[in-house]
Formats: sequence, structure tokens, C-alpha cells
Amino acid sequence: MQIAILLYDRFTALDAIGPYETLGLLPGAEVVFVAERTGLHRSDKGSLGLVVDAALSDVTAPDVLVVPGGPGQTALMEDGPVHEWIRAVDAGTTWTTSVCTGSLVLAAAGLLKGRRATCHWLALDQMPALGVEPSGERVVFDGKYVTAAGVSSGVDMGLALAGRIAGDFVAQTIQLGIEYDPQPPYDAGAPEKAPAEVVAALRDHGRSILAGKRWRDEAVTER
Amino acid sequence: MQIAILLYDRFTALDAIGPYETLGLLPGAEVVFVAERTGLHRSDKGSLGLVVDAALSDVTAPDVLVVPGGPGQTALMEDGPVHEWIRAVDAGTTWTTSVCTGSLVLAAAGLLKGRRATCHWLALDQMPALGVEPSGERVVFDGKYVTAAGVSSGVDMGLALAGRIAGDFVAQTIQLGIEYDPQPPYDAGAPEKAPAEVVAALRDHGRSILAGKRWRDEAVTER
Repeated sequence: MQIAILLYDRFTALDAIGPYETLGLLPGAEVVFVAERTGLHRSDKGSLGLVVDAALSDVTAPDVLVVPGGPGQTALMEDGPVHEWIRAVDAGTTWTTSVCTGSLVLAAAGLLKGRRATCHWLALDQMPALGVEPSGERVVFDGKYVTAAGVSSGVDMGLALAGRIAGDFVAQTIQLGIEYDPQPPYDAGAPEKAPAEVVAALRDHGRSILAGKRWRDEAVTER
Repeated sequence: MQIAILLYDRFTALDAIGPYETLGLLPGAEVVFVAERTGLHRSDKGSLGLVVDAALSDVTAPDVLVVPGGPGQTALMEDGPVHEWIRAVDAGTTWTTSVCTGSLVLAAAGLLKGRRATCHWLALDQMPALGVEPSGERVVFDGKYVTAAGVSSGVDMGLALAGRIAGDFVAQTIQLGIEYDPQPPYDAGAPEKAPAEVVAALRDHGRSILAGKRWRDEAVTER
């Protein structure tokens, strides 16, 4: 079972690593990182460099496609080689998936028309213009399309999909293997739960904050 | 504020990326991946390659040290350049931290003697021989030493430490930024919670399973 994770410059690392660390533990899984060009790709914050081993033409029939999100997603919204590749491999996938703003790329490639899907909460409002019905759920299954909410939700998506692919025993073994017994120190992980000033900070300066830049009382140069 | 994440061959990716994606969003954070040699390092499953930009000698005064775990930890238990570096930079850190079996490396370097610390649940029994009092808690603070349980716990550790460093507002903003509102599909993330056969599978074949190899009805060649 080949699992292809699409990368591009300025991806968000955890978007890619959540599915990698869950789906990659499925029996028989072979994970391949794929991009328009092979070699070094820098994440959104620049300090992490991941090496891509396969070009688009090297990966023609993955069983599972994963498209992570990140600031670099905005450069992937026009039709071109990446969209053509996504459409071509999607024709043969068992599951086509995304994390965070990766769903906007799937939608722009035309795969999510008329479907329910999710995205990072700050980008959900971009979905209707792409013909997608936005959902606030953390993981959304619509046929073979599985979309997850922001960044960390790829772990939940990976486990839910692992259960569909290989059954509860395997998925629970993966969960215990990565000791996923989450105990966040705050209950602030969704806009309905976080303090209003926290939601407002991200609405106003999300791009800057998520790029690892300063905020609040410091200079915020980007919105 | 410099955050140094120590890498080595056969690290577990999520161990490193959890703290990266949380502490890396602190105001003024500068993350650097550091290793005995710069360049490509492969994770435990081999399919992920991360590029290390800094050699040990390039990083002399990090404010925060993060040591992730993974199968490659076993090669870092003897004294040598990595232990010398860990001891040298620890003398100046504000926080010295680990995820998963990274705490065994900190312990082997002599930093956790007489302290409470945690580790991946499958490796907790290795701690007493290193002079450490093992704790089953997910995140353990003992002085400036912060250790986290297996793999995914680095996200919780990163958020808890972000709160100590920069206060609740910033930590909650990071949590909402990465939309960390965990909803695992099973309650199987700790050995006390998972079905007995799941715990047994990992006790018997953990090394093979966590390396992304097959298990159960398939050939298990490694224990």
C-alpha cells in the first residue's frame, strides 16, 4: 500500500507528519514524499528542511494521497502540473486526503465539487467559492475523500483512516504505539472553546503568528 | 530565544515535530536542528529525510534543548561527543527537554540523576537503572527538566512549556493556531486504557510495529 504525501515549499510540518506517523505504521505501508521537484523543501517557518525523494512522474499509482496545508498552499491554487498530477493519481486512489489548507488544493484541482469537507478554521470561509460545503467537524469522510481541520488534526485523521483501512485492532495499536492520549494543558483548540481575545489575535494576525513571527505587543508586519 | 532540537539517524519524526510546531511559534523563537553531522538524517521508518543545518559546535548556547526519541536512541547511550555537547549546553539552558526515549539519552548523559522523568511507556522500566524515578505522567516538570511520554506527547509538552515561557495567552494562541482540539477515534492511547491484546501486541512486537513493519498474522522478524 503506497501512501504519497505531497510536499511543496512553505508546507506546515505537523500537517504532513501527523498522517506520516499514523498511516505510515499500517502493515505493508510504504510512504513516499513527492513534489514537483525532488530535494530540499523548507517548511513554513524555514527552520525545518525535508528532503523529497520522488518527483510527480515517479509516483503514478498511490493507494492513499495526502495533501498537507501551509502558507505555500496559496501558490498551488492555479491549474498546472500539480493539479494535473493530483487529478491523475486521484483516479486510482482508494483514499484521497488532506490536512488543513491542503483541502483547498484538492478543491482547486476540482476534486471536492459538491462534497462536504473541512480545513483550518481560519480558511473554512474559502471553501464555498470552490464549490465545497464547509464542515466544522475535525475529520470529514465524504466517499473516498477525507479532509481534516487545522495542523494537528492530521493525527486524528490518520487514526480514523487507519481504522477504515485495517480495522480497529491495528488502529488502536498505532494509537498506543505513538502514545496518543492527548492532554492539552488548555481547552483552547477550537474557536468555540478558546478565549475571545485568542480567537481575535489569530483572526487579526494569524498569518504572522503561524509563520513563527512575533505578535501582540510586538511589531506585526504581515496580516 | 534559541530552541535546539537534537537529531540523529532513526529518530521518530513526530517526537521532534510536536515541540517544533508549538515552541517554534513562540514570539522570538529561533529553531535550529542540530546533530553530530549536518545534512540528511533519516527517520525510523526511513521514508522521511530531514536536513540538519547545524553541527554540535555551531550551537553553543541554546535557551531550550529538545531531545526527541526513536530507535536511534540506543546508539546514543554511550558517552561521547553528543553527551559532552548535551552537558555543555545544558549548563546554560533555561529548559532542557525530551520526548519519548529522548529522556534516556538525557539520563545517560547524567542530567536526570535523582529526578522524576517520563519516557515512552514501553521504555519506562529502563529509567531506574539510569538513576531516574520513572513517572507515568504525560508531561513531567522537575526543575528545568521537562520530559514527555511517547511520540505524540511532545505536542502537550510544547504547549505546557510555551505557557511557562510566555504565559497562557500565547500558549492558547499557539494551541488554537495548530487547532489542537484532539478527538482520537479510540480511547487507546495509554496502556491502562487500550485493550489487553493491543498492549500485548506492542509488548511483544513494539520494535517491529513502530518501525513501520508488519505484525500479527504477518512475519515479524524483529522483537
